[in-house]
Amino acid sequence: MGQIRNVLFIMCDQLRADHLSCYGHPHLHTPNMDLLASRGVRFDRAYVQSGVCGPSRMSFYTGRYMTSHGATWNRVPLSAGELTLGDYLRGKQLTAALAGKTHVMPDVDGLARFGVEAASELGTLMRNGGFIEIDRYDGHSPPGSESGYPAFLRSHGYASADPWSDFVISAVDAAGKIVSGWNMRNARLAARVKAEHSETAYMTDQAIRFIRGQGEQPWVLHLSYVKPHWPYMAPAPYNALYGPGDCLPPNRSRAELENQHPVLAAYRQHEESRNFARGVVIDTVKPTYMGLIKQIDDQLGRLWQALEQSGRWNDTLVLFTSDHGEFTGDHWLGEKEIFYEEALRVPLILYDPDPAADGTRGNAEARFAECVDVLPTILEALGIGGAPHLIEGRSLLPLTRGTAAGDWRDCVFSELDYSFRHARQILKRHPRDCRAWMVRTDDWKYVHWLGLRPQLYDLWSDPNELCDLGADPRLEHVRAALHERLFDWMSRLKLRTTISDADIELRTNAHKKHGIHFGMW
Amino acid sequence: MGQIRNVLFIMCDQLRADHLSCYGHPHLHTPNMDLLASRGVRFDRAYVQSGVCGPSRMSFYTGRYMTSHGATWNRVPLSAGELTLGDYLRGKQLTAALAGKTHVMPDVDGLARFGVEAASELGTLMRNGGFIEIDRYDGHSPPGSESGYPAFLRSHGYASADPWSDFVISAVDAAGKIVSGWNMRNARLAARVKAEHSETAYMTDQAIRFIRGQGEQPWVLHLSYVKPHWPYMAPAPYNALYGPGDCLPPNRSRAELENQHPVLAAYRQHEESRNFARGVVIDTVKPTYMGLIKQIDDQLGRLWQALEQSGRWNDTLVLFTSDHGEFTGDHWLGEKEIFYEEALRVPLILYDPDPAADGTRGNAEARFAECVDVLPTILEALGIGGAPHLIEGRSLLPLTRGTAAGDWRDCVFSELDYSFRHARQILKRHPRDCRAWMVRTDDWKYVHWLGLRPQLYDLWSDPNELCDLGADPRLEHVRAALHERLFDWMSRLKLRTTISDADIELRTNAHKKHGIHFGMW
Repeated sequence: MGQIRNVLFIMCDQLRADHLSCYGHPHLHTPNMDLLASRGVRFDRAYVQSGVCGPSRMSFYTGRYMTSHGATWNRVPLSAGELTLGDYLRGKQLTAALAGKTHVMPDVDGLARFGVEAASELGTLMRNGGFIEIDRYDGHSPPGSESGYPAFLRSHGYASADPWSDFVISAVDAAGKIVSGWNMRNARLAARVKAEHSETAYMTDQAIRFIRGQGEQPWVLHLSYVKPHWPYMAPAPYNALYGPGDCLPPNRSRAELENQHPVLAAYRQHEESRNFARGVVIDTVKPTYMGLIKQIDDQLGRLWQALEQSGRWNDTLVLFTSDHGEFTGDHWLGEKEIFYEEALRVPLILYDPDPAADGTRGNAEARFAECVDVLPTILEALGIGGAPHLIEGRSLLPLTRGTAAGDWRDCVFSELDYSFRHARQILKRHPRDCRAWMVRTDDWKYVHWLGLRPQLYDLWSDPNELCDLGADPRLEHVRAALHERLFDWMSRLKLRTTISDADIELRTNAHKKHGIHFGMW
Repeated sequence: MGQIRNVLFIMCDQLRADHLSCYGHPHLHTPNMDLLASRGVRFDRAYVQSGVCGPSRMSFYTGRYMTSHGATWNRVPLSAGELTLGDYLRGKQLTAALAGKTHVMPDVDGLARFGVEAASELGTLMRNGGFIEIDRYDGHSPPGSESGYPAFLRSHGYASADPWSDFVISAVDAAGKIVSGWNMRNARLAARVKAEHSETAYMTDQAIRFIRGQGEQPWVLHLSYVKPHWPYMAPAPYNALYGPGDCLPPNRSRAELENQHPVLAAYRQHEESRNFARGVVIDTVKPTYMGLIKQIDDQLGRLWQALEQSGRWNDTLVLFTSDHGEFTGDHWLGEKEIFYEEALRVPLILYDPDPAADGTRGNAEARFAECVDVLPTILEALGIGGAPHLIEGRSLLPLTRGTAAGDWRDCVFSELDYSFRHARQILKRHPRDCRAWMVRTDDWKYVHWLGLRPQLYDLWSDPNELCDLGADPRLEHVRAALHERLFDWMSRLKLRTTISDADIELRTNAHKKHGIHFGMW
């Protein structure tokens, strides 16, 4: 174990915390994820800043809450003024590389204002959140020219103009017909791609090649898997490893459908929610969701081996997490977004090779982590000064090294902008009225919906969040206190982005130094 | 009267609303400001978004509140992502020009990130908020090379390397000694510059030359006077037009110094406050402050004449306002910043040449206006579509044209970041803890100070704001309701800056159009 020279930042897409065996899944064994947890610290209460890919990832990459970075939904461009991990790493003596998904959308209008063309080198860098692309692949639609995956597939005999649609998310049904993974009914069928040619294996290949190719040159690699996100279709044998009996039981109760919060009622009218309300859909999808996770775990085994062979366990910080979770029918919902634990709580495993972390190896950490913590953790690990006036998360290294002060955070925050969702149309709301904020403490979860009644859950007596106390008159004082927590949090967000705190210190009450003498008699 | 083709946006610096005769000053006659009010609408309750030049001006220029634009103090760069009036006007068939002060600081780091050099044409444009400079002059220190004023002075015989310091803000005292306008004790002396060579006259010359030079070519001119801001030194005869008996009496009471709010107590320890606590300082400074205003009024007479001669009253929207007010001892304070009416309420006179506005000419408008309204007013007047997802103010033209809906705003908001002030050091606070927000309704003014007790004023029974009810236990319900108004306002600020509401409508629930079919059975 030695000085940290590299960072391997692994992200999955739509991976629930409770689907790792080290987080307690009884039937889905993830020995490689567990191995990382045994060597590092497993954060048991890690939360994303929004239960949607885009804003969650922008919080990971900027270290800032959604309200601060402003990219509130998928494909909402990140403002040209925001700094990402890649920006902080630029100019340092290391290669910052991306393999997989970032969901960063360049602010084309913003760039154009500065005369930067989207296709230029700088524009490309900004499109990738400041990373150099090994292979960018945002998933869930046929990969374009920014990924070598279609050519890779064709070179392995998957002859098609769109091998992703025709093979990766296609299967052959019992009648011999080719069917699509877009239809969840087909989730148990094997994809028409071999496991070693699947998205997860391909992206792992890219990562391993990159790590080997770097030799002793330092690097930061963001390996960003697009799985276990839909389409729910896994290559053999992963499609058939699990059955309904291996799945966690749905977390829902009939009572949740009484006196529903209006936004939840609207979300439950979405196609994915209506489908996941049916047992057959859950029983069909969940085993394959588990299989896709199992495949990631197997590929991580290859990756760990590559680290081992190249001696990189000694000098590489490894971080494993996900951008958000997944409902698959819990709370009568499909997808994610809503502020339940299934959507917002993610796995977060941090392997810190520094000897100072030896005392915490294998620990489960109960203190709260947020996805905004990842950026400052990486920067501290590399000894790169961050920007305290911008970054709203905090480094987790004091938790791996046992040096954290006693006043660690006592709650986490998350946000939602549901403007882009059908629920808004059902509720007939304007995009400006579709925001919500959550604060979660040890005991309570409170959600403030703009213009609508709040939600409240007593996590002590109702850890499964089945009983919404948002309208319970006896708990007005609890809601008021949590509401004020939200206001306080919001009022402390870092808006003064163009000047550092150190500059402020230098410039405080300094007018006379600059020849400005107001107020003198 | 015809279609609006031009906009003359006149701003003063540090001009209190109550120092115009049309706003009720009994001794300071401002016939030219009054003339504009008689032809247009005088807004009796117009408020700035912050009582400091920089953030207030950025709100004028962006149409956004301080929390949204992030430039929270003087010389805090405006984020490269923010759009200003000049940006909205760019590419339109008109000349957008600046004469005087903007206080825009370019985000040099942000620009560098995009490969834009500060000295380039684009960098210069951004430094000027997107305006073309006629003459940029930010005031309160010797003008640099971006202003022709020093050369102008020298060409008129003011021989000095720094004619501003040596003549414009210098005077000769009774003993024949040259003394500085930085010392308020000298405020009654005549400046060593002739009135026609003073800053106010020079900048008016620039404006008149520009307007005449434009002929029939449309334009937007931001004429931005640096007066009546300190240094308090006026050329003859303006230094001697008024005496202490002509001044409004100080608005303060001994009771204000009991149980003071901690931030106010700290501000009252500032040099300017300690000096303005003395009657002799008020009696020395206020007459000259009035004289500087009177001079602006006289110069406006020349400007109105130029508009008359060129026929521009027919097709020019004229807006007259200030970036904030001034205490000169009121509430035992110097300067501005604190949320009293003297600092935040500004003159706002809007002359709308459109015949639709004939019914409101000469009206006093009691409905609330905010400085964020100026940008959308100008854009609507010119028929330029704004950006509803960015602009937080609203056009005032419905008020000049009598077409406003019944639900006009019922309160105004203002903010303060006092990180840069000595008060922060006195209070031993970190820059991140120095924010405050005000909401003012018809009846109440409430100020929420981060981490400190609030202020509350009953404007109905205490319009002079002499009795702070922020700790009065009987008014807890009033404070709670106003606190929630602030939270609601804050939670509705426009953070989603890179995508328009129209785009959101197009993209709502549109995944299937893009070949993304999640949730299907």
